[in-house]
Amino acid sequence: MPVLVMKFGGTSVADLSRIENAAKKVQAEIARGYDVIVIVSAMSGKTNELVGWVEGTSKLYDAREYDAIVSSGENVTAGLLALRLQENGVPARSWQGWQVPINTTSAHSSARFVSIPRGNIDAKFAEGFKVAVVAGFQGVSAEGRITTLGRGGSDTTAVAFAAAFAAERCDIYTDVDGVYTTDPRVSEKARKLDKIAYEEMLELASLGAKVLQTRSVELAMRYKVRLRVLSSFEDTDETSGTLVCDEDEIMESKVVSGVAFSRDEAKMTLVRVEDRPGIAAAIFGPLADAGVNVDMIVQNISEQADPSDKRAYTDMTFSCPTNQVLRAKKAIEEAQAAGKFAYAQLITDSDVSKVSVVGIGMRSHAGVAAKMFASLAAENVNIKVIATSEIKISVLIDRKYMELAVQALHDAFDLDKANT
Amino acid sequence: MPVLVMKFGGTSVADLSRIENAAKKVQAEIARGYDVIVIVSAMSGKTNELVGWVEGTSKLYDAREYDAIVSSGENVTAGLLALRLQENGVPARSWQGWQVPINTTSAHSSARFVSIPRGNIDAKFAEGFKVAVVAGFQGVSAEGRITTLGRGGSDTTAVAFAAAFAAERCDIYTDVDGVYTTDPRVSEKARKLDKIAYEEMLELASLGAKVLQTRSVELAMRYKVRLRVLSSFEDTDETSGTLVCDEDEIMESKVVSGVAFSRDEAKMTLVRVEDRPGIAAAIFGPLADAGVNVDMIVQNISEQADPSDKRAYTDMTFSCPTNQVLRAKKAIEEAQAAGKFAYAQLITDSDVSKVSVVGIGMRSHAGVAAKMFASLAAENVNIKVIATSEIKISVLIDRKYMELAVQALHDAFDLDKANT
Repeated sequence: MPVLVMKFGGTSVADLSRIENAAKKVQAEIARGYDVIVIVSAMSGKTNELVGWVEGTSKLYDAREYDAIVSSGENVTAGLLALRLQENGVPARSWQGWQVPINTTSAHSSARFVSIPRGNIDAKFAEGFKVAVVAGFQGVSAEGRITTLGRGGSDTTAVAFAAAFAAERCDIYTDVDGVYTTDPRVSEKARKLDKIAYEEMLELASLGAKVLQTRSVELAMRYKVRLRVLSSFEDTDETSGTLVCDEDEIMESKVVSGVAFSRDEAKMTLVRVEDRPGIAAAIFGPLADAGVNVDMIVQNISEQADPSDKRAYTDMTFSCPTNQVLRAKKAIEEAQAAGKFAYAQLITDSDVSKVSVVGIGMRSHAGVAAKMFASLAAENVNIKVIATSEIKISVLIDRKYMELAVQALHDAFDLDKANT
Repeated sequence: MPVLVMKFGGTSVADLSRIENAAKKVQAEIARGYDVIVIVSAMSGKTNELVGWVEGTSKLYDAREYDAIVSSGENVTAGLLALRLQENGVPARSWQGWQVPINTTSAHSSARFVSIPRGNIDAKFAEGFKVAVVAGFQGVSAEGRITTLGRGGSDTTAVAFAAAFAAERCDIYTDVDGVYTTDPRVSEKARKLDKIAYEEMLELASLGAKVLQTRSVELAMRYKVRLRVLSSFEDTDETSGTLVCDEDEIMESKVVSGVAFSRDEAKMTLVRVEDRPGIAAAIFGPLADAGVNVDMIVQNISEQADPSDKRAYTDMTFSCPTNQVLRAKKAIEEAQAAGKFAYAQLITDSDVSKVSVVGIGMRSHAGVAAKMFASLAAENVNIKVIATSEIKISVLIDRKYMELAVQALHDAFDLDKANT
């Protein structure tokens, strides 16, 4: 029998009626001829309740105990869905991480998969079981302790099972019905994509389209797992949702697939930093130690401000989430006080947003950047910082222009029109 | 290091402040020089929430899934108490049933212990851990599925660990401060016992003094585990509570240790049942099949009602809980309709209570029954049924006299006075 992996997130199993709904979707796939592995999250709210108790008990908690406690939410859902399927006449059973076993590293609360041996679950399929309901987000270490993969780990669990069982597809049921060309709340012309390449999805996810965890997409790309995102709140069939797949499966893609954005960015500029080998490491090392998620980094060309001064200077600009600005400022000032580097001025602009166009077609098409900049110029949107990668161009702009910029770019690249 | 087992029930770990309180009691025992194994129940209310979800999903649920779901409550408490102890500077870790492992039979939801190997926990004690916090009420089957022991299984888990680790004592922390000569709500002269023999505790527990699960006392008796019942809501020391122990440890016990009662009993009498070999089995077989918990059984001597009738007749009386009367009646009438036995009349009295005096001293003392009956007679309490065992005498009386009877017997046997 071909194997299908299905994953239901917290809102998709939030109560008994939602669990019944998930069971119905599983049964539809069995009717299509699949053996099904279902990965479940905790009922929504439950993980937060458990985390609250842990944090109420111990601020600097032992991650091993945290994992043992927090993983219980998924165990409950797995049991309830197995019961619901049995009640509907489907041979099903639940699996906790250690029962499979889902072998992971011992990095508690952020464990990584080591192996998922197929033997135990395959034996049950051979006995006539049609469904294995697996508690997501967890595993077991070589020491026999329960581990968790960190938030969003259930998506990653689903992809890992799809890879281990050579599943035909991995369907991620969530509260949205697919991946859109941009956020429909920002542009009403946003259109659901039928397919999107792994690389594009990675850029969209890390840029704030929070449909799939970045890590799950990376794993899917590495193992060529066909990943489908679809809604558990709607009637669905084999054509629903968005398929995240290898670019080879996408016959004729547009140059640009989507416009992503991140509203609350901050831009920080160190003015007149002495330019010398190792200066970037001297600046960004302390920021990383302070837990600042630096995103874009731009270094201007060196200049010599004054012929009598033999040293070279540069301006260093970077972006980070708005709520990390204070932390970043403190880290930089302390590093300067410690003599690690010197600068004339630190300019902070907490009022910017990032807008990006993403598309694998850029690799073979020139002129995307020019078209993007022209579209923004036509709307009088000033670009403050530019960063590019192979399949993405990002700009920082004033926050008040963000919606305008997204809509203008969505139009400029004809994203409201499907390929024909 | 000597090992002490401590068990905290649901109300004793109901929230984070109660868990902190439990941690403090554990720390006091470490200060006295013990390595401690703590058995915990689920936070009160949590098991009911989980059971509610199971029953809401499936009426005839798969007990294996039930066990996997319901056991999660204890796992959460075990983790939280371990964290709390760590926070207080005590080397502690949590243990789920499969990690110890607590090997049980595969009788899900009513599993029995097979073995509790000491190796894993002993190794941690040798590493310097002072506390093993074990999730009660659960184990693992030979098939690697999670099992539970049924309600009250946490007491039994505690006793089993005390036996396996040759613990000096097994302390059961609960919401009462010990075992009393009778229920203080019925007699204000009720006195807390310092010690009570296993056999007496068994009779008191099964008669409604719901301090300890019968099964845990049976296990304690078999393995000679010294069991102490004490309050988690009060300051306690080594002399607190009531010790349940071998009668050899009780130097000079009274003839009667306590007066137990069960308020809601019903008496049913089958009048003029044909008396023949196998008649008792014919009557009580169908009752057992119907799930009726028959307690006392009294059969009057046979009589021949009429010289022309060669057959012998008898009256058969039994008692059961009031809420099982309808079920009992239905079972008896169906059995008669099926021709299994015949009777002239079925008399039901749903308005009786059972009162019992219990004491190992009865074995060597005559006259206890006579004194009991005289005390009741002095209060004009009519006795409807009498049943006796080696260390117990029970009577059924009209419910309205129950409190009076308990108080009279408590006085008659001087239970308000400690041994001197």
